[in-house]
Amino acid sequence: MSQVSDPFRITSTHFVVPQDRQSSADISKLVNRDVEWIEQNVGVSNRHVCSPGDDPALLASLAAKGVIEKSGEPDLLIYASASIRQCIPDTSVFVAKYLGLRGIPSFSLNATCLSFLVALNNAAKLLDSNCRRILIVSAEFPTLSRNFEDPESAALFGDAAAAVMIEKCDRVDSGLVCFCQETWPEHAELAQVRGGGLLRHPLFESTSTEDYRFQMNGEALLRSVLPKLKRFLRKLFDDFGVKMEDLDLIVPHQPSAAGLKLLEHLGAPSEKTINVLSQYGNCVSASIPMALAVADRDGRLKAGDRVLILGTAAGLSIGAAILQW
Amino acid sequence: MSQVSDPFRITSTHFVVPQDRQSSADISKLVNRDVEWIEQNVGVSNRHVCSPGDDPALLASLAAKGVIEKSGEPDLLIYASASIRQCIPDTSVFVAKYLGLRGIPSFSLNATCLSFLVALNNAAKLLDSNCRRILIVSAEFPTLSRNFEDPESAALFGDAAAAVMIEKCDRVDSGLVCFCQETWPEHAELAQVRGGGLLRHPLFESTSTEDYRFQMNGEALLRSVLPKLKRFLRKLFDDFGVKMEDLDLIVPHQPSAAGLKLLEHLGAPSEKTINVLSQYGNCVSASIPMALAVADRDGRLKAGDRVLILGTAAGLSIGAAILQW
Repeated sequence: MSQVSDPFRITSTHFVVPQDRQSSADISKLVNRDVEWIEQNVGVSNRHVCSPGDDPALLASLAAKGVIEKSGEPDLLIYASASIRQCIPDTSVFVAKYLGLRGIPSFSLNATCLSFLVALNNAAKLLDSNCRRILIVSAEFPTLSRNFEDPESAALFGDAAAAVMIEKCDRVDSGLVCFCQETWPEHAELAQVRGGGLLRHPLFESTSTEDYRFQMNGEALLRSVLPKLKRFLRKLFDDFGVKMEDLDLIVPHQPSAAGLKLLEHLGAPSEKTINVLSQYGNCVSASIPMALAVADRDGRLKAGDRVLILGTAAGLSIGAAILQW
Repeated sequence: MSQVSDPFRITSTHFVVPQDRQSSADISKLVNRDVEWIEQNVGVSNRHVCSPGDDPALLASLAAKGVIEKSGEPDLLIYASASIRQCIPDTSVFVAKYLGLRGIPSFSLNATCLSFLVALNNAAKLLDSNCRRILIVSAEFPTLSRNFEDPESAALFGDAAAAVMIEKCDRVDSGLVCFCQETWPEHAELAQVRGGGLLRHPLFESTSTEDYRFQMNGEALLRSVLPKLKRFLRKLFDDFGVKMEDLDLIVPHQPSAAGLKLLEHLGAPSEKTINVLSQYGNCVSASIPMALAVADRDGRLKAGDRVLILGTAAGLSIGAAILQW
């Protein structure tokens, strides 16, 4: 559990998606399930997909441009994502390059689906008189890792990029009320892409095509998450004297239809919960800032609103923050 | 430029290397240069190398164990490195798994050779009454990306892992005096591994074996670094009213013999500078915490000492911090 940060505001949000899209009918042919099965079991009607050779740093820069146009150039750039452009240098450098930034410090942070939320907590602490404006941007291309033998996960993912700018401000009640993260590595193998790193290096003979495909045990994942999430939320609310009804908006990660139903089960009213899953799929770390950007665009965020940002990630990690808008 | 952080101490340091080692004589055969050329031009006499299938998260956990045994379990684990184990989940999870941690939050941070230094600055800001002890660990296997057609870089790299534990403390003069980072992405291509990410995905036909090899234009890199580093250091010293002679120890990244000579050229006295290049090579992000661990082990750090930590990274990034021990 983290202490309250100095006051800051999110001064702009933006998201972009690749042009190509796949409907449930398109996916239906690829995974050998009918459209009804996909919409009911996975809950994703539409997802956008990158093309081979697309650059996640370029898509990230397009989302970042949207917030820089409104808020100005940042003093620090954090690329918060599980999707990397290349091995070396880290992806933040290439986002900065597309943006034409020179001399602005940058780094990458990865906590899979919680990358943005963890970066937001880091950024809140890094703001000071010399670093007044921080750009956080997430871009993900999970569709490149789809395993069409596994209809559930293959129909789930979508590609996207989303960015926010945070700025120091004088309004003392604005910023993070609390942040909390837990990581339970005994469940590390329940959702993974085993390849793409040095353990199964692409040039090793033993590395196989399947190593680059997403593997998920959805049922075991939900079973592991539910008791942990219940206890996690109870503790968060108790420690900060907050109740579900005190919250104005809930911005969850968009893991799956079942994952979002879990939230309802825990007392989150659906009318206060941002749902972008059906239209964009699970966009890994880009889902939370995208949901925030959609809420912002749709006028659902007013000064003083208490926003619960909440998610789970491969790891297994659970994370949440209460943000005063 | 970052403001002074709350007081903290580095309470333990540790480093480990893979068992296998390659002398200059071993490398000589691989790169078709004689031993004298390697020792004079590259400055690395010995380097340790991982074996195919070794896990960077396991080596990281061995370094981490060394600091946990002395300082206790952390409240947060940061894996600060360019070497990832696999695509999903992020590597910090697997380090935590090897350590048997349960519920302790973790994430990964990447700023190539500056990953540790950037993580140290973040960690300093993340310490609070609920997060009193943070483990930062870096592990790198750059020898997997060696290009033996390029003798200079192929002879340069070594594999290693190094960890530090930082803890909140009451001694007000202990911790970061200052931190500064600059990123100049116009030089992003001067040192890179183009593969290993989504732009040149391992399953794309256009991706080649060469994409997984380190490419470096050493001369252009030095030419780009020198004026920027001069100006960077002058500004750092001016802003904080520090002179080179006020510093008790200099802990630089270990980029190359030429890179370390640059430091002398900038006025850093060699007798105050930690040099582990000759014995371990350039270990990317693990070099700085390894140099710190060597200084600590050798009794070269006393309470109150002012330590300049300094480095450059692919990006091109420059970073420095003054740490009061």
